[in-house]
Amino acid sequence: MDFNMNQSELINRKLIHGGDIYSARETLGKMENPPELIDFSANINPLGLPEGVKKALTEAAGSFDIYPDPLCRDLVRQLAEQEGVTAEWILCGNGAADLIFRMVYAVKPKKAMVLAPTFAEYEEALNAVSCRVVYHRLDSESGFRAGEELLDVLDGGLDMLFLCNPNNPTGQLMKKEFLYKVALKCRELGILLLIDECFNDFLDEPEAYSVKEYLKDFNNLVVLKAFTKIYAMAGIRLGHCMTSNEALKAKIRMVGQPWSVSSPAQTAGMQAIKEKEYLLETKKLIRTERDYLILELQKNGLEVIASGANYIFVRYHQNEGTSLHEQLFDKGILIRNCDNYHGLGPGYYRICIRKHEDNVKLVEALQDITGRNQRI
Amino acid sequence: MDFNMNQSELINRKLIHGGDIYSARETLGKMENPPELIDFSANINPLGLPEGVKKALTEAAGSFDIYPDPLCRDLVRQLAEQEGVTAEWILCGNGAADLIFRMVYAVKPKKAMVLAPTFAEYEEALNAVSCRVVYHRLDSESGFRAGEELLDVLDGGLDMLFLCNPNNPTGQLMKKEFLYKVALKCRELGILLLIDECFNDFLDEPEAYSVKEYLKDFNNLVVLKAFTKIYAMAGIRLGHCMTSNEALKAKIRMVGQPWSVSSPAQTAGMQAIKEKEYLLETKKLIRTERDYLILELQKNGLEVIASGANYIFVRYHQNEGTSLHEQLFDKGILIRNCDNYHGLGPGYYRICIRKHEDNVKLVEALQDITGRNQRI
Repeated sequence: MDFNMNQSELINRKLIHGGDIYSARETLGKMENPPELIDFSANINPLGLPEGVKKALTEAAGSFDIYPDPLCRDLVRQLAEQEGVTAEWILCGNGAADLIFRMVYAVKPKKAMVLAPTFAEYEEALNAVSCRVVYHRLDSESGFRAGEELLDVLDGGLDMLFLCNPNNPTGQLMKKEFLYKVALKCRELGILLLIDECFNDFLDEPEAYSVKEYLKDFNNLVVLKAFTKIYAMAGIRLGHCMTSNEALKAKIRMVGQPWSVSSPAQTAGMQAIKEKEYLLETKKLIRTERDYLILELQKNGLEVIASGANYIFVRYHQNEGTSLHEQLFDKGILIRNCDNYHGLGPGYYRICIRKHEDNVKLVEALQDITGRNQRI
Repeated sequence: MDFNMNQSELINRKLIHGGDIYSARETLGKMENPPELIDFSANINPLGLPEGVKKALTEAAGSFDIYPDPLCRDLVRQLAEQEGVTAEWILCGNGAADLIFRMVYAVKPKKAMVLAPTFAEYEEALNAVSCRVVYHRLDSESGFRAGEELLDVLDGGLDMLFLCNPNNPTGQLMKKEFLYKVALKCRELGILLLIDECFNDFLDEPEAYSVKEYLKDFNNLVVLKAFTKIYAMAGIRLGHCMTSNEALKAKIRMVGQPWSVSSPAQTAGMQAIKEKEYLLETKKLIRTERDYLILELQKNGLEVIASGANYIFVRYHQNEGTSLHEQLFDKGILIRNCDNYHGLGPGYYRICIRKHEDNVKLVEALQDITGRNQRI
C-alpha cells in the first residue's frame, strides 16, 4: 500500500452542518465585545433535554462503567410498543447518522438517488463506498415539493433511494399515500427505499405522513428515526431504524461495532419514551411560535417557503452587501445558511423554531438589519 | 438489487465478547434462586467510574441537548498534552471499536494479518470489507508470546497488520524496541501497522511498551487507545487513535458520521484526564490483587499463562464434566471463556482483576468447585 496519500485526501471534510456553535464561538471569540450566541441553525427541540431524562442520567451514572447492552434489549422492547412495530424489526444506533452509514456499508450500493436539496449525510455515506449519487432536483417553483414526477425518474439501475419526510432543510411533507406508490415502484425495480422520519414527531398529524404501517408489506423499506431532535438529545446520540427485512437488519448490525449505543443513550432513550407531557408541550410551542415567526419573517421581507416541522425554510432576496446570515451572526444569531446544499444557492436559509424569548431576539435583529426596526 | 437475502445472512452475529452481563442475567433469571452476578469477564477498571467524572456528567447534563463538537476540540487539546503528541495527530471515536471499523473502512485492505489469539473486533471489521484475514498463530509453548518470528512472516502482499499490546486475551507484552523493528519491516513492505494500546495504562512501566514516540518517524503507524477500560467508561464509549499520517486521519474521519463522539463522552474524557490520583490507586490495586489472585488461582490448579494488564490469562486442564466457566456461572461468577478465539480452544479463560472482596468470592467459588475448600 502507498501511505503517501494523495494531497486531495489531506483536505479535511468541512463542517457542513447546522449546530456548529463550536466554530461559531471560535470566530466570535476574536471579536472585542462578542455578543451572546443564540443558535437557530440546529433543528433541536427548544424545550431542551426533558427534566426526567436529566434525572435518569444522574441516577444511572454509577453504572456507566460497564459495557452497554449491544442489543439494547430493554430500550428496543419499549420502542416496539411506542412505535407499534415488532421488536425484531428495530435496530438502535449512535444517532440516526450512525445508521445511515451502517446501512450504506451493509448494502454497498453502486448507484443511489437523493433529493436535491436534502440532508447531506446520505451523500457523505454514499461517498464512503464510492457509490454514484444521482440527484432528483426539486423545483423552486413548487417550493421544492416532491411529487408524482419522482415515480417517473426511478429506474432499475438504482440500488437505493433516500427520502426525508419532512424534508430537511425545506420542511416539505410527503403524504404516506404518495410514498406507498414510491415504495411499490421501488420494489418493482429492486430499489431499497430509506425514508428518514427524524422530524415526523414534530408534526401535528404524524400518522398522515409516516410509512411505518407499510413496513410489513415491503422488504425493501427502511424507516429511520431519531431521539436527537424531538427529545433534544443531540449530544447524547440515539436513533433507530425499522425494517421487516430481518436479514438486512442483521447485516446493518454486523458492519459496525457491537457497542455503538452508549449506556447514557439507552438510559436517556428509555426515560424519553415516557415523557408524554413534554411531547404535547413541544407541539403546542412549535405551533404557536411557528405562526409568530412566519408572520414576522414575512414582515421583514423574507419569503417563507415551507415549515412542516420545527424549522422554517426561507429565501431572502438580496442583491448586494453582506449576506443575511453574516449580518445576523455579527449580532450573535446563528441561522443555517443553505447555500452548500445541492439544488440551492445563496439566499436560502433554514431557521429553527425556538422559545418565544429567543424568537423575539431574532425578529429584533432582523428589524435592525432590514431597517424595519421601529423601536426608539 | 435482491432483497431476499441469503438465509445465511439471517444469522445474527453472536455476542462473542466478555462483559455481556445482559445475556447472563437473562439466563440467571430463569433459575429459581438466582445468585448475584459478579462479572470477571470484562476488563474494566474495578474502581468504577471516577467520582469526578460522575460529577462532571451530572453538572453538564443540561447541555447534552445540543450537538457535540464533531472535532472534540477541547478534549483533543487536553489529550495532546497528556499523550505528549501533537493535537493534529489525534482522532477521537465512539470507543476504540468505532475507530477499528473506521480505520478499516478508510483503508479498505485486501489482505490483513492478525494475531491468533487476539481481540475479535479487528477481524469483524475486516470481514465487513471482505478483506482476507491471515492469522499469525501464537505458540502455546511460549505462552502465546509474539517474538522475532513475526518479522519473518510479514510480506508485501499484506495491507495491514493488527497488533494488540498487551495482547487481549493473553496479557502478553511486546517491548517497544521489538515493535520498532516490526514497524520498520512494515514500512519497507507497505503494510499499515495498527498497534492497539488500550490496556497500556494499566502497566507499571507503560513507556517501555508504548510506540507513541515512533509515530513521528512512521507514516504507516497508528496507535489506538481507549478511555473505556482504564477509566471504567465502557458504557460511555470513548477511544482515540494517533498517527502522524494526517491524510489517513482525515480519511478515517470522513468514512463515518461527524458526531460519533457524544457530549457525555467528551465531558467524561476531559474530566478523566485530570484523575491522576485514581490512576495511581488503580495501579496499586491491580498490582496487589494480581499477586493475590495468581497465587490463589495456582493453588486451585489453574495454570497462569500471563497477566501483563488488568486481567489474568489461565488454562484449566479438565478432561470431563461441566466446564469451569459453567460451574462458576452457576455460582453467579462470569469469567471469559476463550474457546471462541482463533488459536485457542476449551480450557482457556480470561479473568479480570477486580476489588479484593470480589476476588475473594471468585477464589471461594473455585475452592468449592475444585474441592479445595477447607471451610467445613
